[in-house]
Amino acid sequence: MRMEKLVSPKLSDVKIEDRFWSRYIKLVREKMLPYQWEVLNDRVSDAAKSHCIENFKIAAKESTGKYYGMVFQDTDAAKWLEALAYSLEGEKNSELEKEADEVIDLIGRAQQKDGYLDTYYTIQEPLGRWSNLREGHELYTAGHMIEAAAAYYQATGKDIFLKIVCRLADCICNTFGPDEGKIHGCPGHPEIELALVKLYRLTRDEKYLNMAKYFLDIRGSQSPSHFEEEQKMDGFHHIFPEFEHLGYNNIQAHKPIRKQKKADGHAVRALYLYSAMADVGYECRDESLLDACRTLFDHITGAQMFITGSVGAAADGECFTCDYDLPNNYNYSETCASVALAMFSLRMFQVEGDGKYMDIAERALYNTVLGGMSLNGTEFFYVNPLEVVPEQLKANRTLHHVLPSRRKWLGVACCPPNIARTLTGLGNYIYSENEDTLFVNLFIAGKCSVKLKEGTISVSVQTDYPYDGKVKITVENHEGIPFSLAVREPGWTKVEQMISKSGKEVSVRREKGYLYTEKTVWESQAEFIFEIPLKPVLMCAHPRVASDAGKAAIVRGPLVYCLEEADNGKNLGAVVLDAGGSIEPVFQEDLLGGTTAVLADAWRVSEKGWEGKLYQPVTERLEKCRVKAVPYCMWNNRGEGEMRVWLRVMKEYQDNTQ
Amino acid sequence: MRMEKLVSPKLSDVKIEDRFWSRYIKLVREKMLPYQWEVLNDRVSDAAKSHCIENFKIAAKESTGKYYGMVFQDTDAAKWLEALAYSLEGEKNSELEKEADEVIDLIGRAQQKDGYLDTYYTIQEPLGRWSNLREGHELYTAGHMIEAAAAYYQATGKDIFLKIVCRLADCICNTFGPDEGKIHGCPGHPEIELALVKLYRLTRDEKYLNMAKYFLDIRGSQSPSHFEEEQKMDGFHHIFPEFEHLGYNNIQAHKPIRKQKKADGHAVRALYLYSAMADVGYECRDESLLDACRTLFDHITGAQMFITGSVGAAADGECFTCDYDLPNNYNYSETCASVALAMFSLRMFQVEGDGKYMDIAERALYNTVLGGMSLNGTEFFYVNPLEVVPEQLKANRTLHHVLPSRRKWLGVACCPPNIARTLTGLGNYIYSENEDTLFVNLFIAGKCSVKLKEGTISVSVQTDYPYDGKVKITVENHEGIPFSLAVREPGWTKVEQMISKSGKEVSVRREKGYLYTEKTVWESQAEFIFEIPLKPVLMCAHPRVASDAGKAAIVRGPLVYCLEEADNGKNLGAVVLDAGGSIEPVFQEDLLGGTTAVLADAWRVSEKGWEGKLYQPVTERLEKCRVKAVPYCMWNNRGEGEMRVWLRVMKEYQDNTQ
Repeated sequence: MRMEKLVSPKLSDVKIEDRFWSRYIKLVREKMLPYQWEVLNDRVSDAAKSHCIENFKIAAKESTGKYYGMVFQDTDAAKWLEALAYSLEGEKNSELEKEADEVIDLIGRAQQKDGYLDTYYTIQEPLGRWSNLREGHELYTAGHMIEAAAAYYQATGKDIFLKIVCRLADCICNTFGPDEGKIHGCPGHPEIELALVKLYRLTRDEKYLNMAKYFLDIRGSQSPSHFEEEQKMDGFHHIFPEFEHLGYNNIQAHKPIRKQKKADGHAVRALYLYSAMADVGYECRDESLLDACRTLFDHITGAQMFITGSVGAAADGECFTCDYDLPNNYNYSETCASVALAMFSLRMFQVEGDGKYMDIAERALYNTVLGGMSLNGTEFFYVNPLEVVPEQLKANRTLHHVLPSRRKWLGVACCPPNIARTLTGLGNYIYSENEDTLFVNLFIAGKCSVKLKEGTISVSVQTDYPYDGKVKITVENHEGIPFSLAVREPGWTKVEQMISKSGKEVSVRREKGYLYTEKTVWESQAEFIFEIPLKPVLMCAHPRVASDAGKAAIVRGPLVYCLEEADNGKNLGAVVLDAGGSIEPVFQEDLLGGTTAVLADAWRVSEKGWEGKLYQPVTERLEKCRVKAVPYCMWNNRGEGEMRVWLRVMKEYQDNTQ
Repeated sequence: MRMEKLVSPKLSDVKIEDRFWSRYIKLVREKMLPYQWEVLNDRVSDAAKSHCIENFKIAAKESTGKYYGMVFQDTDAAKWLEALAYSLEGEKNSELEKEADEVIDLIGRAQQKDGYLDTYYTIQEPLGRWSNLREGHELYTAGHMIEAAAAYYQATGKDIFLKIVCRLADCICNTFGPDEGKIHGCPGHPEIELALVKLYRLTRDEKYLNMAKYFLDIRGSQSPSHFEEEQKMDGFHHIFPEFEHLGYNNIQAHKPIRKQKKADGHAVRALYLYSAMADVGYECRDESLLDACRTLFDHITGAQMFITGSVGAAADGECFTCDYDLPNNYNYSETCASVALAMFSLRMFQVEGDGKYMDIAERALYNTVLGGMSLNGTEFFYVNPLEVVPEQLKANRTLHHVLPSRRKWLGVACCPPNIARTLTGLGNYIYSENEDTLFVNLFIAGKCSVKLKEGTISVSVQTDYPYDGKVKITVENHEGIPFSLAVREPGWTKVEQMISKSGKEVSVRREKGYLYTEKTVWESQAEFIFEIPLKPVLMCAHPRVASDAGKAAIVRGPLVYCLEEADNGKNLGAVVLDAGGSIEPVFQEDLLGGTTAVLADAWRVSEKGWEGKLYQPVTERLEKCRVKAVPYCMWNNRGEGEMRVWLRVMKEYQDNTQ
């Protein structure tokens, strides 16, 4: 294990000025955050009711009425605050900051004397605190509060919220743990663990780290478990009786976490848990925890991840299923699970320094995380299918969990604010640093100042990635310190060479998916120029993935492409890509606000000779055509229609007539 | 419209002595009927509880206790009695007949004074009679009782049961109809309509026919409908609240039946309804009804039928969905729906004399109806998938309705007795007659005596179809009457020639899927010899069926084949059929009790080069192999394992490496 993990620069030191990403981040800043604030306050009439702020008011006894919403409704506000905090680091917004300050005060007033904070239990079941760890989501909610407060403190320097969550964390530490009289249990939905590590890193108070580790260690280790015991208590009742049939594997509590060799159960829970395992594993130098993380990461990405960087094949249980079960039209692939996959990947990268983790973070971010939101920033997917025929979704309720288009808000509103906080926190992913090395992980145009051990350097990235692969990194090194630049070489390509301003080749060392320059005192305005090849590629899936057999997906760089009805008409299942044909990227200014389409040679199975027939001896008349693919993350922005990522592929025309 | 429809000879005149079918019929006679009788009496400990007979006892006040089971539990007994009746026509069984007589007496004692008969309402809701036509299933249950009684009367000549159901039918006629004071409604689940036509044909009492026609005419014609009105009545409560979300199209009551141009809603209900429409259409010379039937039949078979002769793509609502929505691993394809498709097809054939209808009846019977039962006769499928990976069924609950293996009995036990009555009534499908023509519809070895207008002839069919296509039909014509023989020429093939005993070609006229010999006084022991070509064929589906794109199914004659793990190992999705390779049938005495396998050249996608990878640029290393396919109807008789009907197909090896 590395002695020191890589760290991200402060968000406020990262500026993003990127054609691809800035539009999204601007959307979050200018539309999503104000919009979500309106939703949280129930002022958007055609969106699902949130009641989130009202719940805090009722808990603070400043309003009357009943609690409304899911037990974890508080987290909508927490994730909004976290997203706003990240946003404020990049760009001030005094109006929203004022709203935030007010809601933070309100949260403070809704907090109980002993630090307890959860409006559901405060309003609805004041005697029921901590009585249902499996379903109650109190620790999950606390985790999001802590993450938000940590972010808000870092962004604004204001410590009111931080103090609130320290009292909350103290309340948790007083309630849980190995000591007699404390609850020997862990939450049904992980999140508190990684939040406590964040709080530890900010406060350096070890009790928070120990608490996180306790929650991890006890998980799946007891027999009978606290989850079983709590059900036997007087007054216990299920909050989600509809999930009673799910086993303990759904909450990753079926065996001790170090013995979990395969990702299992609810995908978001799993990935929040694994993220915490990576955090605690690093902080406690616990190699067994990190080993489990490595194994789980390889399992997910080797057998249970969709090409779009999404996970969770099953709707019921929102969970991982069995290896190579990757259905394209009834998958679940929750947006939050891709957010969590990116979180886990980033943590693993920071510990391991291996680019393979950033490959996956990039894939999740560029495809499913972005695909979760509309290009106007106000509509969201919870489920992210890879294949949609709207008529089938409506007619066949086996697919009822899949929507043909995004919704304004969602009853379980975890995804929209999760996208928001990921986008405003994107700066965390782009650069990393250790003592003497500046890492460029993602190719996103912008600037950053990075504090290395011996001084500060400023880096500026110019690129039109993912539309164009040319990247120029300029490092201003006014202090004249020695440093090494490490540039990620994505696992799916090879970077030919890196040249300097003068056109001379910069010699690099390849290690674990990064190109390292030598460590030296580079000139005061050094340039590093290279190109990430972005040839569109037809990708195929492992032979055991039956749903992708004989099919290919068009991928260009980090972007997975799809065919949409808007460009290619209906019956996309009848398209056959020509593996030997031309396939070329074309930037189109008027397409989806400006994006690169991929045009590809293909055939379409003709319907001639099929009149009135449903089956006949194998015969296939193919008609040459050219299809237009658009980035998956931008699908469903031109009305409802068919969409398909995986398409049949052949190398030559085959006349199958016998 | 033909003036006289074709009719089936009496079941007692049909003897089946056929390698393929006799084993099944023997199973029904010797195992299923006795076994199901035990189940109905709750004497099979490891099968789902039936309580059916006990319900009758309670209704007759001969036992105490509560009603148990679905509201239509009575039909389990009715379908069993109907199956037994057909069986008795072929072979006496005094033991079961004695049980039947006793249960019929019991049914009589459970009948109410006014003829009403339904143990659920009698026991559970005596004041609720006819209060919930949508969900109550009283008319559905009555229909099955009538069908059973008609069959029992024809088989035994005993009229006790017939009298019971006449009183029941009279009660229905007194309750429903256009007159003031009667209920102006129709049932949620059709079945009574076709049963009333049967009763009419037996008794020639026109009120039964008129009643059937009334139920058809009023369906979907009222606004508001009786279904809507009944919900507003005091005390109304849903029996199946879980189906409340389903629209009136689910029960084919969304528009008048003559305006229904596409099959819609619950597949079994739809096909029972269409069967009744064909019956009433014929009896009332109602061309508009028959036109609707023709349109609906063509719609189903042209856009919504699986190649295995099953229908109903959606589990929720057990219903037809949208055109070309034919998913192979999450379809519903209820066994009963294929029974009903065969029923509808036979009726349409009898009215239209067109072989295309028998093609579909044959497909349903030889594949899904038979596939619904195990080769030991005691285990049953309700849902009939075309593709199963047992691990996925267990891990991904979107597929929860699909079982990897048959069950001993089913909570909703419609399918097992429906298979039983279809198999013991198979004789109805094999031959038809009109004034002067003997029709041979299915190629099933056996004998039949047929009464034509001018006298009786005896026909004997010798064949090993569907394993071998050679058919010899011998007609004994001792009375020396003129007749024409009409032999079905399946729509999927061409019969080269028909020869006589002396080897001379018999001249035939082709019309609507039949080969007609001239009408003449054939010699007293005339022979007609021909061959149905049974070359295995790779079939493909319409280009709009995305789930079958690029795939083929192996079909030989009426039998659809599938690959099973038992013969071909796991990962059947990695198999690619060689469309240009050899494909040959091989009868194997030791395979599944003796059946014809199909051996076919194929490839398997190699896993070499895939270690640790889930996606990579298109590359496919194919390894030559030979696969062994077995008849779909016999799958899952060798333990749990993968099964797949549709397989990738290519004509030549393609190296897709770019």
